[in-house]
This record gives sequence, C-alpha cells and structure tokens, in this order.
Amino acid sequence: MENQEINQIIKSWEAQNKAISEIFNQYDDKFYLNEVAPGRNRGIYLLGHLIGMNDFLLPMLDLGDKIYPELEPIFVTSPDKAVADIPSIAELRQNWLNLNHILSEHFTKMTSNDWLSRHTKVSEEDFAKDPSRNKLNVLIGRIGHMNYHRGQLVFLTPKVN
Amino acid sequence: MENQEINQIIKSWEAQNKAISEIFNQYDDKFYLNEVAPGRNRGIYLLGHLIGMNDFLLPMLDLGDKIYPELEPIFVTSPDKAVADIPSIAELRQNWLNLNHILSEHFTKMTSNDWLSRHTKVSEEDFAKDPSRNKLNVLIGRIGHMNYHRGQLVFLTPKVN
Repeated sequence: MENQEINQIIKSWEAQNKAISEIFNQYDDKFYLNEVAPGRNRGIYLLGHLIGMNDFLLPMLDLGDKIYPELEPIFVTSPDKAVADIPSIAELRQNWLNLNHILSEHFTKMTSNDWLSRHTKVSEEDFAKDPSRNKLNVLIGRIGHMNYHRGQLVFLTPKVN
Repeated sequence: MENQEINQIIKSWEAQNKAISEIFNQYDDKFYLNEVAPGRNRGIYLLGHLIGMNDFLLPMLDLGDKIYPELEPIFVTSPDKAVADIPSIAELRQNWLNLNHILSEHFTKMTSNDWLSRHTKVSEEDFAKDPSRNKLNVLIGRIGHMNYHRGQLVFLTPKVN
C-alpha cells in the first residue's frame, strides 16, 4: 500500500480509534452510565453504537461477516435505554479494541484498487454512474461518524468543550 | 483535478459545510444564543469558531491571507462569553457561506501535487521526515473538526441524538 492519500485516511481512522479509546480509559466503568447531556445518549450506548457501526465495515468492504452482530439490535437499531440487558463497559471496551485491531489488519492488506472498488451495498450499475461510491468513501464516512460522536463524548467530562 | 481520492475528500468537506449550513438555517437568530448543553458553548460561538478555524486553511494551504482575522480573538483564542461584543448570527452566516465559497473555488484549482506538498506551518526539514504533513492532511483534519462540532450542534435541537 503506497498510496499516500489512502494511507493518510487510514491514519486518520486510527487516530480516531485511539482518541475514543482514551475517552473510555479515563474513568471507572460506572462513569460511562452518565448521559453526555441531559436526555441524550449515555457514554456506554455511544461506545456500543460505535462498535456496531464500525462492524458494518467488514461486510461493506467485503472483508467478511460482522464480528459482533448481537450489538446491532441494542446499539444501532434501538435508541439508548430501549434494551435493558446490555453488555458491560469492560466487555464493550474489549470488543472495541478487538474490532479495531481486526479492521486495521485488513486495511494493511488492501490495495488502492481495492479501496477504489465498489462497496457491497451499491450495485454495479449504480457504481458505474458514481465511482465515488467505493470502499474508501465508506471509510471516510465512518471517520466522520467517529468524530461526530467524539464531539458528544467529551461532554461527559466537566468543562471540556 | 482527476485524483479520485482527493476528490472524495473535497466532497466530504463540502458535505460538512452543507450540513452545518442547514443547522444554522433551521431556526430564527435568537435560537443560536442557546448553549448546546448546560454550561457548554452557544450555537453562535460554534459557528464563529468553525469560520475562524476554517479561515486558517487559506494561509496554511498557501492560498492567501485569512479573510476574517477579526474572528480569531473572539472565537478561536477566547472561550465562549469571554468577549461581549460579537458579530450577529446573520453576519456570521454570511461569512460562513462566503468563506466556504472562496475555499471551494481554490480547491478546484489545486493539483494532486499541490495537495501532497507541505503545508506552510511545517518546515521543509520536518516535512522530509514525514511527508504526510501535507496540505491534504490539513483538510482531513478540518473535516474532522467540523464533524466533531456538528455532533455537538445537533444538541441544540430537542430530541435529536
């Protein structure tokens, strides 16, 4: 993989993973049962949500099946607090690290052509009309998604904007 | 400009601009004097902050001087509410659109080589050591910054997570 642009996007992905890991390594587990703001999602929900959403990268980038499909009904298709029995922060933290590790391993083996090829949720026909609907675009979207929720997660900590 | 990867990053930049414009076109001006969460930045501050930060792209990408340098001491180097006399939402909304327009115009003229060349705040020596400290990386960072604060701005609206 020698494509400078793609490398930088992957670096940005890894930097987001790291920044979010740091947020969840900062306090004891109970802390993440707090809502990020009154009436908003809890920290624990957002961690599960980020895992659930990043897990979609595996099938979308044609890298295999999701690793934690059981998180989707809890953290992706349901809002926070809709499901009573959810995994612990300790368990989610491990899932998060494991998933990131597996994805990063896959990314190092992908060529530029792989990244610029269509993702699995777009048809060949639609891809021919818009070649930007490729695997790289899915990754760019996920980086944005992590930044978006990271902006919310910092509100867990008093006084940080 | 025929580099697919760079084009997609620019598209992502434009999508963020648009999403943030939509947030600030949704309500009457007074609404944006609300804090995004108790004790956090007001909507108006975050708009000024996003303009102030994006304005840095002009000097950093070697495209000229900042257009709104007067916003920096209010919205970048000072926290919210530290400066009493600030521009109105109407004025900031115009600055935002104008700045984005100017930047987008510049971006269409930049070549791949321009994007992969060093940004103005890194020395030639440091750039030689780490060629990822280029103009493209500055743009990737700014897209992340917009996503981050957009995640906070949605809290202005009741019930949207």
